[in-house]
Amino acid sequence: MNIRDFVRDIPDFPAEGVVFKDITPLLKSQEAFSWVINSMAEKIQDWNFETIIGPESRGFIFATPLSFKTGKGFVPVRKPGKLPYKTYSVSYDLEYGSNSLEMHTDALKKGERVIIVDDILATGGTIEAIIKLVEAAGGIVEGIVSFAELSFLNPRDKIRKDIKIESLVQY
Amino acid sequence: MNIRDFVRDIPDFPAEGVVFKDITPLLKSQEAFSWVINSMAEKIQDWNFETIIGPESRGFIFATPLSFKTGKGFVPVRKPGKLPYKTYSVSYDLEYGSNSLEMHTDALKKGERVIIVDDILATGGTIEAIIKLVEAAGGIVEGIVSFAELSFLNPRDKIRKDIKIESLVQY
Repeated sequence: MNIRDFVRDIPDFPAEGVVFKDITPLLKSQEAFSWVINSMAEKIQDWNFETIIGPESRGFIFATPLSFKTGKGFVPVRKPGKLPYKTYSVSYDLEYGSNSLEMHTDALKKGERVIIVDDILATGGTIEAIIKLVEAAGGIVEGIVSFAELSFLNPRDKIRKDIKIESLVQY
Repeated sequence: MNIRDFVRDIPDFPAEGVVFKDITPLLKSQEAFSWVINSMAEKIQDWNFETIIGPESRGFIFATPLSFKTGKGFVPVRKPGKLPYKTYSVSYDLEYGSNSLEMHTDALKKGERVIIVDDILATGGTIEAIIKLVEAAGGIVEGIVSFAELSFLNPRDKIRKDIKIESLVQY
């Protein structure tokens, strides 16, 4: 399956000069979406982890089917004010301004091994923030798996070398 | 399995006097989360549909594993400005103020039968808005399935009688 055929380029979204990778055709195709989840599961089959972490909102789209497929529990990372219990919070810089992400303080037990799942690995800023949340909660990041990786933004430069990284498609 | 044991009550969230149903313990338990997805699939096994619709963000958590389990394609409904292509938009009233939801104009073909999946069926306002989006795009809503239903808010009063409704837990 040429999975790239199911990703649509949208020029000038969300800002002028940016070409957005639209994954909605992929999600709509039962063959393509199943292929992605099964391929992600295959990539990580030898990884040692108990729990899958995924960030709001598009991260949920890949992280929760992968949780179902692999039989591992799921922990959501959300935008500020969305999680109802006590949270850890991490701020990180965007090109303009900054953003925050939160995770429940009781989401992980000490030494729990996790993987982080997201749709697209771009600058690596979001992943870097999630790693901080996991470590604040006492967890250990085994690796990161994403559907696509924007290699021209060099996301791997931001991520420590002891953390595994897999992606299905590179741009 | 007593699935209610995996839902935590958080008083006064997101506003004073509201008791929030926190599903994060459920998501963290691989047994409980798998049980929910398998039970949803069982509830809808005789329904006639091609596609699963889920709203951002918590709807994604149940809709996408159910898409994987049933082998049906997934269409996201999102908050304004998040979907990159042309969209239909519907506004609906909240207790204070209003909200909008969007779906891509090319998400469905004419006459396509869909189901809507969400975490919690509360006032029914979100579901009512999604039904309008599906019908604007030419689709037909076969039914709605949610993890929990807040019966005391009478969500079924807002939904047409020809649309099936299933939920796993009622409060």
